[in-house]
Amino acid sequence: MLKLHFAPNSRAGRIVWLLEELGLPYELNKMDFHPKDLKSAEHRARHPLGRIPVLEDDDVTIWESGAIVEYILERHKNGGLKPTVEDPMWPMYQQWFHYCEGMVMPPINTIVVQTILLPEDRRDPVALGQAQRLLTKALAPINDWLEGKDYLIERFSGADIMLGHACFMANRLGSVTDEMTHLAAYVERVTGRPHFQTAITMA
Amino acid sequence: MLKLHFAPNSRAGRIVWLLEELGLPYELNKMDFHPKDLKSAEHRARHPLGRIPVLEDDDVTIWESGAIVEYILERHKNGGLKPTVEDPMWPMYQQWFHYCEGMVMPPINTIVVQTILLPEDRRDPVALGQAQRLLTKALAPINDWLEGKDYLIERFSGADIMLGHACFMANRLGSVTDEMTHLAAYVERVTGRPHFQTAITMA
Repeated sequence: MLKLHFAPNSRAGRIVWLLEELGLPYELNKMDFHPKDLKSAEHRARHPLGRIPVLEDDDVTIWESGAIVEYILERHKNGGLKPTVEDPMWPMYQQWFHYCEGMVMPPINTIVVQTILLPEDRRDPVALGQAQRLLTKALAPINDWLEGKDYLIERFSGADIMLGHACFMANRLGSVTDEMTHLAAYVERVTGRPHFQTAITMA
Repeated sequence: MLKLHFAPNSRAGRIVWLLEELGLPYELNKMDFHPKDLKSAEHRARHPLGRIPVLEDDDVTIWESGAIVEYILERHKNGGLKPTVEDPMWPMYQQWFHYCEGMVMPPINTIVVQTILLPEDRRDPVALGQAQRLLTKALAPINDWLEGKDYLIERFSGADIMLGHACFMANRLGSVTDEMTHLAAYVERVTGRPHFQTAITMA
């Protein structure tokens, strides 16, 4: 059975969400988002930097949420969540899937580090301000693209698992503004999905 | 014909490299890595943030280097550079492909911004130091993985186009140390490929 190594408030939520959307059975190793769990020798044997998510499937151990989404959709169940290469929406599926880690997550990581993870005396307001401006810039093209669409490729897909989750995080950090009407509606649509709620409220 | 919008010293080098490795014909729009080109109205019509690479193929315009690599390998020519889903190396192809933007490029971006792009009076030595430490950490698992391997999945693949290029950048920023013997040899192997040289010396 698929075994997911998980901690709350992390990219591991993407994988729980995907597994729930697909209705696949899985085993969950719930850890705390804390060095005592993530940097333990046990978890470092799975991922040398103690990161999550990590997926185990028989003799395969795989990291990186984007790779794990691909892995599940291609080796276990597609469920209509990944278009075929010939599908006219496939290029935009790829683009927005990769836009998640390429453009949106780097400033989110910095904001989380500078507002939550670092002790107050080590925080850097200059780095925080740069990241907040960069995140606002990175969200604008998503807002424009979503005009008239319910999801990134119109129907719900793996691109929403990645970038929708990143937009949810951006919104929680206060970066989705009222003027981004299409993006705000999209975040509401994504977070209103019952399987998203299951994944995100999991502790 | 495929048309690539390019500027030197950027992720666009990955796409030139891939196109050259595959022997595919393409047209190149060479721009300077400078706001006068990248932030021009003409280029912003292709990518709202004025980023590169951008690939055009008839009625498709697609950004994000990872998405473009997928696009070319799946819609134009595989050339043995992407394993099939059933291939035992496919999960690690996915993992290292995504590790590039997920783990290695974010600190590289910060280092480039803090040492090259920002004017000296706006640079932030704290942010620079954090990024340099993070990059060193992110490189360690690649070094370990490469022990006994010529390339990430043993044979040359699209994962090397992504992560190999990122390792080349990390090395140029001085983050590949002498102790990382497998990674240093890998960077030499990657950068010694004639098509890599064609891509990287293109101005």
